[in-house]
Amino acid sequence: MESTDVGSTQILHKEIKALANEIRTLKDVKRNENLIRENVCTIEKKPLASHESQRKFEIRCPRGTRDYGPQDMALRKQVLDVVTKCFKRHGAVTIDTPVFELRDILLGKYGEEGGKLIYDLSDQGGELLSLRYDLTVPFARYLAMNKTVMYLKRYHIGKVYRRDNPSRGRFREFYQCDFDIAGSYDLMIPEAELLRIINEILSALDIGAFEIKVNHKLLLDGMFAVCGVPNKDFKAVCSSIDKLDKLPWEDVRNELCNEKHIHNDVVSKLETFVRLREHDSSLTNLDLLNWFEKDEATMKNNDIQKAIFEMKQLLEYCELFGILSTVTIEPSLARGLDYYTGAIFEVVLKEFSEKTLMENDNAEEETRSMNIGSVAGGGRYDDLVSMFLSKHKVPCVGISIGIERLFTIMKEKSKMEHVRSKDTQVLVASAQKKLLKERMKICRLLWDNDIKAEMALKANPKMLDQMQYCEEHKIPLAIIVGERELEEGVLKLRDVPSRVEQDIPRDNLVEELNRRLKHLQ
Amino acid sequence: MESTDVGSTQILHKEIKALANEIRTLKDVKRNENLIRENVCTIEKKPLASHESQRKFEIRCPRGTRDYGPQDMALRKQVLDVVTKCFKRHGAVTIDTPVFELRDILLGKYGEEGGKLIYDLSDQGGELLSLRYDLTVPFARYLAMNKTVMYLKRYHIGKVYRRDNPSRGRFREFYQCDFDIAGSYDLMIPEAELLRIINEILSALDIGAFEIKVNHKLLLDGMFAVCGVPNKDFKAVCSSIDKLDKLPWEDVRNELCNEKHIHNDVVSKLETFVRLREHDSSLTNLDLLNWFEKDEATMKNNDIQKAIFEMKQLLEYCELFGILSTVTIEPSLARGLDYYTGAIFEVVLKEFSEKTLMENDNAEEETRSMNIGSVAGGGRYDDLVSMFLSKHKVPCVGISIGIERLFTIMKEKSKMEHVRSKDTQVLVASAQKKLLKERMKICRLLWDNDIKAEMALKANPKMLDQMQYCEEHKIPLAIIVGERELEEGVLKLRDVPSRVEQDIPRDNLVEELNRRLKHLQ
Repeated sequence: MESTDVGSTQILHKEIKALANEIRTLKDVKRNENLIRENVCTIEKKPLASHESQRKFEIRCPRGTRDYGPQDMALRKQVLDVVTKCFKRHGAVTIDTPVFELRDILLGKYGEEGGKLIYDLSDQGGELLSLRYDLTVPFARYLAMNKTVMYLKRYHIGKVYRRDNPSRGRFREFYQCDFDIAGSYDLMIPEAELLRIINEILSALDIGAFEIKVNHKLLLDGMFAVCGVPNKDFKAVCSSIDKLDKLPWEDVRNELCNEKHIHNDVVSKLETFVRLREHDSSLTNLDLLNWFEKDEATMKNNDIQKAIFEMKQLLEYCELFGILSTVTIEPSLARGLDYYTGAIFEVVLKEFSEKTLMENDNAEEETRSMNIGSVAGGGRYDDLVSMFLSKHKVPCVGISIGIERLFTIMKEKSKMEHVRSKDTQVLVASAQKKLLKERMKICRLLWDNDIKAEMALKANPKMLDQMQYCEEHKIPLAIIVGERELEEGVLKLRDVPSRVEQDIPRDNLVEELNRRLKHLQ
Repeated sequence: MESTDVGSTQILHKEIKALANEIRTLKDVKRNENLIRENVCTIEKKPLASHESQRKFEIRCPRGTRDYGPQDMALRKQVLDVVTKCFKRHGAVTIDTPVFELRDILLGKYGEEGGKLIYDLSDQGGELLSLRYDLTVPFARYLAMNKTVMYLKRYHIGKVYRRDNPSRGRFREFYQCDFDIAGSYDLMIPEAELLRIINEILSALDIGAFEIKVNHKLLLDGMFAVCGVPNKDFKAVCSSIDKLDKLPWEDVRNELCNEKHIHNDVVSKLETFVRLREHDSSLTNLDLLNWFEKDEATMKNNDIQKAIFEMKQLLEYCELFGILSTVTIEPSLARGLDYYTGAIFEVVLKEFSEKTLMENDNAEEETRSMNIGSVAGGGRYDDLVSMFLSKHKVPCVGISIGIERLFTIMKEKSKMEHVRSKDTQVLVASAQKKLLKERMKICRLLWDNDIKAEMALKANPKMLDQMQYCEEHKIPLAIIVGERELEEGVLKLRDVPSRVEQDIPRDNLVEELNRRLKHLQ
């Protein structure tokens, strides 16, 4: 096994394949052992479970993943209904892509850090595959594959996968909810609609005041250039600046000077720009933009001037859309992803206390770059599609909503109200034995009439159990069948919360139920 | 690399780990090469895409997977709405589980064939993981993990993964839609509700007549015993019998005698049982069950007697639920999965021609055991949960609906009707230039009033393009802003299909739109 003398990637590939083959062979031996064991079980008519004790099964989800139970799912649906309703109000369509992609599609899209977190599938003979890391790259791949689609306003809600450290409270499988507008449109109009959408969603969810921080990739680039940051260090500096909402300036300064070896003078110049708001909290958005237009150093930089012009345009549109009060231009906002080319956004809840989030959400970190209170982030990425297909230019802007974070917040909120996990309207019960068939007939009648009904799936259920079931699941009505009622051609209808009962002629049952249910809504 | 002398699994494990480490090291070297290349690009300010030509990217989905575009998604939603509405009518809740499971959880659950099709994730250090193969095993794992949940009526719609051969027209990623009832209930009551549910769904989808074939694991076991099939060959014989709806008896006979070396006499005895319906098509369900009760050979077999008793009970309940006419007892039905313990089902469309399915569906084979026209299958599996946690007995019965097959059928059906992929009700258009801000104001007003509205995201869109957009996406109404209208305080409202236009006072806009939209529904 001497592979230290690495020549070309080809040799490496061969080497890897040989190793993989080796592993496959070894696994086959193991698999055969299992098969033999299974066959022995079959011959001896023993259930497979009999060797469970030897195997020492661990009955759990993989690290960093979890099941969603019925309550969680009901709450999730509530949130997703609000979100998708808003997307549809804006004429968006939805698409779905496979959970895994060809490995080459994902390579080199997520920077050094992100790339390490990609889940690879085993080489079981065939293609090299990886689980998707986000929904943006698959979307760009979709646009590159469907060349006739030059315009698309789409949302996508799906799971993404990151081999992050679960002990640091990060999930390895979580939902993302992306909204993107693809197409050559006019300056800042799609951006304005995007911000309008996030406004509508957060308002509808009613989770308190929020702030949309806006910056521009060209402003960042321009600032770095003006300050004298070497080109090769742009990314590194960007990722340090990005930490400013979590760390005090001194820590960021330290990182820049000592870890990233940026010159002291450069860092001091940078400080002026990124701490503008900190030093003067009275600055309006326009004040801030004007400052850059008037500052001697920045007024000559073309990138900065372009960024300022575009952001002014965006502010104007935001005013027309009635959302200006939620927007804050923030020169220190520097989202980590490499592919942004224009405006960048981050949405932060103002009122939700850090403590609540830390306590309840310590594992629901949707994106690595997401800060405490952050619920959405995005920006313009005009060159991603052409990374897949050069000369095919489809400019895009999008936002990813931290839907897991929103679930957590809504879960916290809903502690006051009960979220029903099932919609059953009527339980068909009986007080006496041997009435299974009668209950079945009534259920059939109700289902035929689109009434959400259940019955105990036992021949002779206890009355108490049936009533407890109603209360546990907040089923508002119960029909109670008894010998007397059968003889008289009636059914007892019980209002579960008040326990008030009333005889209903059997022929009027559906009508009466519909009347009551309409009332209950 | 001498590993032929295989001692224990432990040694193998160590060996595998060492190899994996080796591979990891090699990959790191390769990754560094990529990083260096990226950094060179950054320094030279070249876009990453520049080495695309060298890389020879393939822009496509992995083999056996595909994207769902907006049209597909709209149709899928239509079908899923029908299905989930029915599940909820029966008081079902839903859960969600991770896409991958610990490898041990899946091992030994899918027979020899199934096991080979499981997707493994790479060993990137940590747990050994595999993509889920179905939704049933994760459900059983969920029940074993949540010991207090002794009763659960749940549905789960999610993607499953099988490394099947795409060239044989099989997808490797596809949706499954499972409904299961877990809990100790009384004989055949949950089964009857299950069959009622599948009846409701197929009737609501309106895709023609269907037949629910029913058999019982104990009838199969009993028949095999009575015929003298050796215990060790039960599974093998079962999988041959399972092919009877695709192959003529002679082929199955050949396979049994020549490939599986079952004795000729045994196969002839078997023939009597499994071809009962073929030989006498006038047999009613009850005739058939009575036949087994009266036959000299089968009347003494306890398994068979139990199966007959249970199926008679099921038929009685099906009658009460009004679905008896769709049920056929079929002694040759033998679904492949190992874990069934009681009643088994398969639902087949009667009218959908084989040809249509073959032409349009050649890649939508949901389950390996699914036959032409088959749209659902399932059965009772009382021991699966205790395979994970011995002594924890949670009996289950479930059905898996071939939702991809249903999508295909509905897609075929919908060719006559257009399925809208977006819900937009109003396009806010302008006839002249420089009216962007006016359009924005109107959009804001409509969104504020929950009207689904869009505008062209361009400063000066062409009138023709805007009207084409309406027609392409079946947007029923358009508001047209012009200089004249602005001066007169009105807006032109256009009915897109008829092209009839009318001036509306601006103040009445929302009211008038709501009136029109109500009319349009």
